[in-house]
Amino acid sequence: MTERDNIRPVILCGGVGARLWPLSRKSFPKQFAPLINGKSLFELTLERVSAFSRQQTLVAASEHRHILTNLIEDKDSTGHRHLILEPEPRNTAAAMALAALATPDEAEESLLLFCPADHHIPDHKQFTETILKGVPAAASGAIVTFGITPTHPATDYGYIEKGSDYIGASFRAERFVEKPDAAMAEQFLLQGNTVWNAGIFLAQKGVLLQAIGQHSPKTLHAVKAALAAAEQEPLDNGSSALIPAISTFMEAPDISIDHAVIERHDNIAVVPFEGQWHDVGNWPGFAALSRADKAGNRIHGQGVAREAQNTYIHAPHRPVIALNTKDLYIIDTPDALLVSNGKCTTEMRELVVDLGAAGHPEATAHAKVYRPWGWYRRIEAGAGFQIKELEVKPGAALSLQKHRHRAEHWVVVKGTAEVTRGSDVFQLSENQSTYIPSGAVHRLKNPGQSALVMIEVQAGPYLGEDDIIRL
Amino acid sequence: MTERDNIRPVILCGGVGARLWPLSRKSFPKQFAPLINGKSLFELTLERVSAFSRQQTLVAASEHRHILTNLIEDKDSTGHRHLILEPEPRNTAAAMALAALATPDEAEESLLLFCPADHHIPDHKQFTETILKGVPAAASGAIVTFGITPTHPATDYGYIEKGSDYIGASFRAERFVEKPDAAMAEQFLLQGNTVWNAGIFLAQKGVLLQAIGQHSPKTLHAVKAALAAAEQEPLDNGSSALIPAISTFMEAPDISIDHAVIERHDNIAVVPFEGQWHDVGNWPGFAALSRADKAGNRIHGQGVAREAQNTYIHAPHRPVIALNTKDLYIIDTPDALLVSNGKCTTEMRELVVDLGAAGHPEATAHAKVYRPWGWYRRIEAGAGFQIKELEVKPGAALSLQKHRHRAEHWVVVKGTAEVTRGSDVFQLSENQSTYIPSGAVHRLKNPGQSALVMIEVQAGPYLGEDDIIRL
Repeated sequence: MTERDNIRPVILCGGVGARLWPLSRKSFPKQFAPLINGKSLFELTLERVSAFSRQQTLVAASEHRHILTNLIEDKDSTGHRHLILEPEPRNTAAAMALAALATPDEAEESLLLFCPADHHIPDHKQFTETILKGVPAAASGAIVTFGITPTHPATDYGYIEKGSDYIGASFRAERFVEKPDAAMAEQFLLQGNTVWNAGIFLAQKGVLLQAIGQHSPKTLHAVKAALAAAEQEPLDNGSSALIPAISTFMEAPDISIDHAVIERHDNIAVVPFEGQWHDVGNWPGFAALSRADKAGNRIHGQGVAREAQNTYIHAPHRPVIALNTKDLYIIDTPDALLVSNGKCTTEMRELVVDLGAAGHPEATAHAKVYRPWGWYRRIEAGAGFQIKELEVKPGAALSLQKHRHRAEHWVVVKGTAEVTRGSDVFQLSENQSTYIPSGAVHRLKNPGQSALVMIEVQAGPYLGEDDIIRL
Repeated sequence: MTERDNIRPVILCGGVGARLWPLSRKSFPKQFAPLINGKSLFELTLERVSAFSRQQTLVAASEHRHILTNLIEDKDSTGHRHLILEPEPRNTAAAMALAALATPDEAEESLLLFCPADHHIPDHKQFTETILKGVPAAASGAIVTFGITPTHPATDYGYIEKGSDYIGASFRAERFVEKPDAAMAEQFLLQGNTVWNAGIFLAQKGVLLQAIGQHSPKTLHAVKAALAAAEQEPLDNGSSALIPAISTFMEAPDISIDHAVIERHDNIAVVPFEGQWHDVGNWPGFAALSRADKAGNRIHGQGVAREAQNTYIHAPHRPVIALNTKDLYIIDTPDALLVSNGKCTTEMRELVVDLGAAGHPEATAHAKVYRPWGWYRRIEAGAGFQIKELEVKPGAALSLQKHRHRAEHWVVVKGTAEVTRGSDVFQLSENQSTYIPSGAVHRLKNPGQSALVMIEVQAGPYLGEDDIIRL
């Protein structure tokens, strides 16, 4: 199938996943979490689109660069990927314009396949075949959408009404209805001629850019200007990423490609996708990935459901007991818990905003924080102390630094540490420890071939992250 | 009121509180937790009965001796308390026989007032006055019970039907019904002549022992034999406790005083208690201690209820969000979580038993463990490491010991530590740390006047509590 070689996948990784809080947070959204047999939806998406080309473009949030390089580095070092980091997320119209404009090597008639990184489509073969069905329409100048056969009267999806037969196996897109009310969703299900908009698009690069320019000229203008002043920035894994200039990029309207272009354009085709598709966008959708027992309970980890019905328990860390509950979602994470009936999916965004406004860092940040050298995880903070676990990648080092107000005590749990303290440089092996007094210049390095795992106990009158002087 | 001086309070502290799991566990039951404005129900009970006499008898589980001495030491060092530690809990008939027989100084006609340690009775003055109303009946040879006016058709209490007027302000107890079904409980509420059995008893020592001997001779016999072979054991706080011999004590039937004596005896009086009374015996009862908002939600700590009704959130440690929930109890603790509709109160006991059988230590043990020298708390255990927080009382020391498989790293967060390591003895101040290699003989002591708080990081291939050689 030679068509495959002409399709360049573009993965849109910028989602925040607020409706899956507290599992998904801005600092580490759902698409990067190992949800399906230890793999993330992002990784599975990369695998899925690799059938087309290993020349791929990723559009992600600048904030997630360390997460991305960790995942790509761990899983695949042979791909030839073009990474674009948005200074701030700006919705799909700008992200798609960015990807199309930032691939100057591609001809105007090259086909771009845009895929969100946070969907789960288990059957990769069926996915490939469906995309290929859209090639004739896309090659003739249409923007091709892919439509999922509705399984229930969902009110939080966009619907596309299929029109007459169009090029190849496609139909003309007759009408778009975004998030219909319950009555209309029921009617669509009865009519049988509407499909859910999967958010996957296939189009010639030139066609897409022309359509964006026609329907949302501000988007095209802003993204062009942001790219003209873009910078190429080196990444932890030796590659680099393109970063558009923030000032001009933020002038692009915060609008989805659906509202900006698809609903207005006159040459839109739709190809039905018959396979399993999960957008994993809310707790009911997330829970549907696990098998239910006879009473409808779904358990992840150390959950126990007793006298319970239709109860989902996400409990990777500790025993979570649901007793006599019904129609409930219980989501346990190390530092925040949600108990919900799963019905307020739109309320979730407001909830997360309000939690942040009330001063809860758990609204947007996870306990685990990714850095160029690896990650750290807050274990506990008490009066006068704070405990962290750190993992430093082989060969990586933290910056030379000192703290005014805190002493640090380091215990090596796994691997080897090279410690610089003042003018001394020495090594610590497993089960050994050392002490960095407040005010002492220090640096931590992993000189070994395997990961360094360390427990750090900070003690002192002030333990804020801002007490750090980098040298 | 001279009557007060003739009343000796006996506090029954032996409950486990399984229906309040995971807050209440065998290793640290609810009556010792600081539930009411920072005070425990146990402490509040001591305060309440102090109106009668500071000569008090406490009957508690041997397992809780360190908790008890910590609480008594902290709050009151002037009381003259007689502490009896049951080797294993054996229900109220045996506990009350024990208290009565183990007070040889009291005359046969002395009045004993038996109070459970896990009830909440906010109005101490009204409590005192009600007890004094029972004195004439008790002094004449009756066993006096106290009856709570029912507020709802409860099915998990014992009911007492009031008969004709009896001595003083008391009534004859006409009939006892333990845990009636819902229909009968409704009928009792309509009739208006029954009260809940509060589990509080006033009787002459001789009368009570004679009644136990008459209705449950095995109890009296076993307890007498256990006391004949009892041992007086020194406690952490310098006082001592009486410990009955386990082999004979365990021959006492596992039966409540209600079933063994009260329901069978012919001279039982009941004095109504009109004040507020909470048995704090299940989650609905526990939640009733907090004020509800207009939607019936009750929040403790970092709980947030949104679009919720009648939802109780216990969240002292981290954000717990209830979204669109109804009639729910959410109980968060550092190492286990319960979500329940509050209706299965009897199922709670089975649940805790089953969790223990499934190998969850959280069924019976809290993360915080009391020791003669203070307490420790497991913060986290990972691959190859375990982290604990320790608090050592002024002047206290841990035993001289060594570990085969683990190294220990100690960081002083507060106070001063005197460390013995091999033949070295040295002091550590705040923010200082040291290292105990595996195999090294060591001891930790607090030489100061204030508490020593320490973080201990254990590292090694085996971290079980049983890798300890005491010297």
